[in-house]
Amino acid sequence: MSVQQAIREVEALLGKERVLTTVEDLACYSFDGTADAPSKRPDAVIMPKTTEEVQAIMRIASKYKTPVYPRGAGTNLSGGTIPIKGGLVVTFQMMNKILEVDAENLTATVQPGVIIASLNTAVAPYGLIYPPDPGTVSTATMAGSTAECSGGLRGLKYGVTKHYIMGLEVVLANGEKFRAGGKTVKNVTAYDLVKLFTGSEGTLGIITELIVKLIPAPEAKKSMLAIFSDLDDAGKTIAGIIAAKVIPATLEIMDKTTIETVEAFAKAGLPTDAEAVLLIEVDGIPEVVEKEAQAVVEVCKRFNGKVQVARDDAEREKLWAARRAALPALARKSPTTVLEDATVPRSRIPEMLRAIRAIAKKYDLLIGTFGHAGDGNLHPTILCDERNAEQMKRVHKAVDEIFRVAVDMGGTLSGEHGIGMAKMKYLEWELGATGVDVLRRIKEALDPDYLLNPGKMVAGRS
Amino acid sequence: MSVQQAIREVEALLGKERVLTTVEDLACYSFDGTADAPSKRPDAVIMPKTTEEVQAIMRIASKYKTPVYPRGAGTNLSGGTIPIKGGLVVTFQMMNKILEVDAENLTATVQPGVIIASLNTAVAPYGLIYPPDPGTVSTATMAGSTAECSGGLRGLKYGVTKHYIMGLEVVLANGEKFRAGGKTVKNVTAYDLVKLFTGSEGTLGIITELIVKLIPAPEAKKSMLAIFSDLDDAGKTIAGIIAAKVIPATLEIMDKTTIETVEAFAKAGLPTDAEAVLLIEVDGIPEVVEKEAQAVVEVCKRFNGKVQVARDDAEREKLWAARRAALPALARKSPTTVLEDATVPRSRIPEMLRAIRAIAKKYDLLIGTFGHAGDGNLHPTILCDERNAEQMKRVHKAVDEIFRVAVDMGGTLSGEHGIGMAKMKYLEWELGATGVDVLRRIKEALDPDYLLNPGKMVAGRS
Repeated sequence: MSVQQAIREVEALLGKERVLTTVEDLACYSFDGTADAPSKRPDAVIMPKTTEEVQAIMRIASKYKTPVYPRGAGTNLSGGTIPIKGGLVVTFQMMNKILEVDAENLTATVQPGVIIASLNTAVAPYGLIYPPDPGTVSTATMAGSTAECSGGLRGLKYGVTKHYIMGLEVVLANGEKFRAGGKTVKNVTAYDLVKLFTGSEGTLGIITELIVKLIPAPEAKKSMLAIFSDLDDAGKTIAGIIAAKVIPATLEIMDKTTIETVEAFAKAGLPTDAEAVLLIEVDGIPEVVEKEAQAVVEVCKRFNGKVQVARDDAEREKLWAARRAALPALARKSPTTVLEDATVPRSRIPEMLRAIRAIAKKYDLLIGTFGHAGDGNLHPTILCDERNAEQMKRVHKAVDEIFRVAVDMGGTLSGEHGIGMAKMKYLEWELGATGVDVLRRIKEALDPDYLLNPGKMVAGRS
Repeated sequence: MSVQQAIREVEALLGKERVLTTVEDLACYSFDGTADAPSKRPDAVIMPKTTEEVQAIMRIASKYKTPVYPRGAGTNLSGGTIPIKGGLVVTFQMMNKILEVDAENLTATVQPGVIIASLNTAVAPYGLIYPPDPGTVSTATMAGSTAECSGGLRGLKYGVTKHYIMGLEVVLANGEKFRAGGKTVKNVTAYDLVKLFTGSEGTLGIITELIVKLIPAPEAKKSMLAIFSDLDDAGKTIAGIIAAKVIPATLEIMDKTTIETVEAFAKAGLPTDAEAVLLIEVDGIPEVVEKEAQAVVEVCKRFNGKVQVARDDAEREKLWAARRAALPALARKSPTTVLEDATVPRSRIPEMLRAIRAIAKKYDLLIGTFGHAGDGNLHPTILCDERNAEQMKRVHKAVDEIFRVAVDMGGTLSGEHGIGMAKMKYLEWELGATGVDVLRRIKEALDPDYLLNPGKMVAGRS
């Protein structure tokens, strides 16, 4: 078989110890962080140490037309790293060095396998941070989160991964490599290849080195919790904060179902008769934080919110513990947790929350919704059981409707989880047939044989 | 001739009054803002009123294989809008409406021909700004500056055009259209088509509508001028300001040649024995501005800078008048002003200024350099005379060397002017043969016949 021939050639090059082929090893790479997704064992898992080895792997894969799946920590939530067509998984545990922290230019240069949190630990002594903060910062890798263009809680003020990727080294399907971007703040040389490969979900090339932007760490922070007995008041508060010209670092919302579940699980002191709570954090230099926190409190009160302001780090921790408990608390209630990331313009959040509630009722499902209200990125979380086929049919219908509603509201299929396998079928809703054709033309221009992460995002011509 | 046939079909559709063909009209569109560039008359200039008309024009152009050059105000500085292969120029004076200002979502939706300054006038009553500020804000259009990914003075703190383009409607070479992006802060649906078309210099599609991000206007500003008799001290000051965790809104530098020229022209009170001046502006809420201004003054003094702080708007105006006089003052000294935008990592600015000075000496040329020190984006400005063939040979050699040095320092060919016709020949220096091949594959995937802005950025296969 040609896949086996490819594996033998890779083994000859890298040695057998960096080419895993036992059933036990392969099983670990047959799935990823996505619930309710298919699984499939790869034929081998390869651990290169250098860009040149990645190039060699791709040359061999090209020769034998063997699919290749670049993989970070597999924490994505869209089936983005499942080796659905068999072939070779390439992982980057052995390319995990922070090559440089350049405090003067506010950049870091890293290998693909560096964990996001490790980078933040390394730059902290310089008083700097790398802001993108997906929930998986302590396991997710720099190249994985770049390929997925991960978001997080601070999107509104700080942006997402794409805003911090300044330069990339990429290996193409044919084994050739190139570099684009660099340490300059401004760069308009030709098409923005750095942005094209950021968020390309491993379908256009393999990222083998990254230059990322760092920013000064905020000196101070202040957190507030506001409780609302009316969803519209919560919505007006979100709008009112922005209208007061305050851009909070985080502006999170939890709906009634989530509040009840969190409270039952974590006893965080949330009032279970509330319709919504907002968790707000402002940051910056101390004078700004004071001023902005006051403005936020005023807006919350104006729209009938009951506000608690954390007076110290312990109180701040307690407020955030409730938010962090949202997903574990929901997940604890059922064997399967289908976590989506439908995203709408900020002004339409109350409407979207109501639509999700109606969909839950229609399909007789429990859906808790929480998420990043500041940037319109909601996480409707469906509590279900994969073994219950009848229920899962209702779940799939509900998911279809949630995305249909999000797109109809001028939103997007994915705020931060990516398209992967999970949302390919919806793509035309957002981009139209012409937009999807543009994706396909770009994919085929760079990877005509669909060797890189096949079965994700862009379907081949049928 | 097929071009004439295409023009007749467009006339039949739009009426003759929106299809210009007189020699006088065509002459106006035979060149753009770029000095030392070739000129060429188009066969017609077309003024569509709707996206559907743009689609019809592209269908006709496709049928007759007629080149099409989308054009805003033609203020670019890389020959990006010169109709070098003849054909049809398409302009957007009649698609210049601001369709919506959405203060709640902090977005505006505009037609391609809206002038940048007009958008800022329209959003000012909401206390909002659209930050990208190329020198040509009062004439340049939204789609033109998006296609070129214009920069400006505020790049370090506020980013450039690409950071503010959230959604696009695009007409492709074949006349089909699609939309990507929208009003959501987060969007990771598929490849980042919005970013791919931003900065694509009209070579991939025609932008027919834009959704852009707005931000709250800063409440206060403070400007400072610092004078240095040693170039290294100026460099250390730039680094020191960043190290002090201050990100100024603007951080401009002028070299000795520029200072002397500005002073002779504008009598702004600059000391002509200075080696460099820095012009620094911090902005934000008043408390921050005070604190950051103090930090900047301290850093300037630490590195032997003589500092003036503007005490009021009149003094602020006076400081900035000197900076604004830089280009006119330099331009006044010679018939031709070759203005480049070689960009290096911020830390290498003193080294780059010295390299430019050495190149000026080597080729016996007068080069004044000013620019955006905060983001490493320098504007070496060569004063020359296009009619002097011998001198222009030296100018071209000097330009070659300036870009070679910039790339060797880890910089880029273009910080904000684009590649256009002017810098195609250097592309491999930055992107390598493989990177240039990636550009070509993307171009040919979307515009296989090179109908859109041919002769710019991406050369066809030879």
